[in-house]
Amino acid sequence: MASDGAAPNAGKPSEGDFHSYFCTYEFIYHQKQMIEDQVRTGAYHAAIMRNKHLFKDKVVLDIGAGTGILSIFAAKAGARKVYAVEATAMAERAKLIIAANGLDGQIEVVRTMVEQLELEEKADVIISEWMGYMLLREAMLDSVVKGRDKWLKEGGVMFPSHANVYLAPIRWGTHERQSDQHDDAIEDWYGFVDETKALYDLDLNCLNEQFEEETKEYFLQTSHWCELEKHHMVGPATKINSLDLRSCSVDDIQELRSEFELSVTAPGTDHIQGMVGWFDVDFDGSDQNPVEEKITLTTGPGPRAEQTHWGQMAFLLHPPLPVSSGGKIKGSARIYKRGDNMRLLGMDSSLKVEKPDGSAGEARKVKWNVD
Amino acid sequence: MASDGAAPNAGKPSEGDFHSYFCTYEFIYHQKQMIEDQVRTGAYHAAIMRNKHLFKDKVVLDIGAGTGILSIFAAKAGARKVYAVEATAMAERAKLIIAANGLDGQIEVVRTMVEQLELEEKADVIISEWMGYMLLREAMLDSVVKGRDKWLKEGGVMFPSHANVYLAPIRWGTHERQSDQHDDAIEDWYGFVDETKALYDLDLNCLNEQFEEETKEYFLQTSHWCELEKHHMVGPATKINSLDLRSCSVDDIQELRSEFELSVTAPGTDHIQGMVGWFDVDFDGSDQNPVEEKITLTTGPGPRAEQTHWGQMAFLLHPPLPVSSGGKIKGSARIYKRGDNMRLLGMDSSLKVEKPDGSAGEARKVKWNVD
Repeated sequence: MASDGAAPNAGKPSEGDFHSYFCTYEFIYHQKQMIEDQVRTGAYHAAIMRNKHLFKDKVVLDIGAGTGILSIFAAKAGARKVYAVEATAMAERAKLIIAANGLDGQIEVVRTMVEQLELEEKADVIISEWMGYMLLREAMLDSVVKGRDKWLKEGGVMFPSHANVYLAPIRWGTHERQSDQHDDAIEDWYGFVDETKALYDLDLNCLNEQFEEETKEYFLQTSHWCELEKHHMVGPATKINSLDLRSCSVDDIQELRSEFELSVTAPGTDHIQGMVGWFDVDFDGSDQNPVEEKITLTTGPGPRAEQTHWGQMAFLLHPPLPVSSGGKIKGSARIYKRGDNMRLLGMDSSLKVEKPDGSAGEARKVKWNVD
Repeated sequence: MASDGAAPNAGKPSEGDFHSYFCTYEFIYHQKQMIEDQVRTGAYHAAIMRNKHLFKDKVVLDIGAGTGILSIFAAKAGARKVYAVEATAMAERAKLIIAANGLDGQIEVVRTMVEQLELEEKADVIISEWMGYMLLREAMLDSVVKGRDKWLKEGGVMFPSHANVYLAPIRWGTHERQSDQHDDAIEDWYGFVDETKALYDLDLNCLNEQFEEETKEYFLQTSHWCELEKHHMVGPATKINSLDLRSCSVDDIQELRSEFELSVTAPGTDHIQGMVGWFDVDFDGSDQNPVEEKITLTTGPGPRAEQTHWGQMAFLLHPPLPVSSGGKIKGSARIYKRGDNMRLLGMDSSLKVEKPDGSAGEARKVKWNVD
């Protein structure tokens, strides 16, 4: 069974083998995917280039610089000095790109984790693109906040300066497919148990409950990356969390808790199949150094042309939650780092339907992995 | 760019996210996939149950026991005592299964790496299913050989006892698709470079060569998991390596080197598109304790019903190698653990075509990653 020494993937490979190959920040392909996300790169570009007064003759710190593209924008906006901090081997490529663009006089690439960073001066501005799925996945914000506390001048600018998390009720066809796949996997298991008994006189019924748990967690309690459009939403978005990145502490971002209310407004709705979650970030500058033009990078449902590589996360409800047009859902949510892998997230939620007549249903507790 | 702290996968997820989830030996789903591979499980079952004389009243060591299925077979064949050694949490499930099958009197699950194993007695038989793609992927054989040297009695039985690696010349439609995808990726890169210049006044031409290298390695120099049928082969299989698992040393298996000859026999062939590689293992017993019935587990191309979860590995040649029916290829190969990840393999090869008239072409040197 090849399991000694914890070596994964002796089984039939899938897309996953290819995925793993490109799935690190050390591959150019992956950096390309991020740069060619025009909503993302365009928002940073606009936020910097349309607010040059914040960069002119200033010291800038780029945390997690990757190819150095944000550092280059800052230098082009007139920064006196940019420190591009990057821990992976991509730092070496950033040096190449910066030199090829004639900016090595202004930008210094520092290959280190930001926690180990040593600088000769503090920064006027920190730029960073640290956001993961549902904002916090990857847990990079911790590093950015630590970098801010140590290296940003009093009154300095965080770019972005604010982040917000949203939820909205949805109906989405994938709901049924997931439910069917779950049912098929369970049926397949019992066929497998019978066959194993017949072929090898081996009784595996003792694993039934554990297999059902595992299968439920995989198919029904794992959030889905998606690119929804507005018509999937059966009610408006509700902001469930806001972070002021100029002042939030590391403690503040270990988990995000919220109480919220979702309205179901789409005519003819009698149930929702789940919720969709996303984030946006604002580039407002600081009180002492505000922007002239406000830019927002949003990752919510919308036309295809406005989609980002982050997509959204769908949190599906099995069974669907009966709630009619005009009804409301009172909810609470906790988004947290998972114990098994601190880069991954979990979301625990409690949802209670309020009917149009004001009567309330029972609270349903649900939880999802955000892998 | 979210690259500080080496957090993968901020980008658009694919099958890979789901793959990663199940892709560990701690998931029942994965163990199920292996058990329901009837070629694999059936071969171990037959080798043990049809050679009960090797197990009756004996001490057996199962290295990398997983769910404990091989230990159960050994116990059912009459073993006095089976030590089921498993390092992952699957060991806890093995205990459940063994108890549920009423064999906890005979089988003791030991949760440890085999390198840290301490036993009160040596074993008469070692059973293990340690094989990965192209035999050596996952590098688990090292642990099995170390376990053998420390815990197998003189003249004891290794199950399996021998392993062989094969190559055969192929034509396979995926060849063209890979080549097209490679070309598309390169074309896409240059479009991206132009667009990045136009949108952000950023010149990325300095990465062209590195991107081409990365893309070539991914699309053209990575072997492919496949389930070929015999008609894909344009010549017979050649055994390129043999290991005697009763005597090979850890040094012997750090890399496999071979000189070989491939014959191209399919009528009308004027080129080959690559080679397919696979392995088989034999259960012969030892000189002192031979089997009564010889069983072989083979993973080569064949009818769908005889395919295993290992499939085969295709090593594609870009461009194809011109060689006609009746021609031969003189080759050498080196299969080795890769420096970037010792669980993964590389294969370097040199291939020289000998025409039917005896004249020889130039040697072409090729290398592949076996991910």
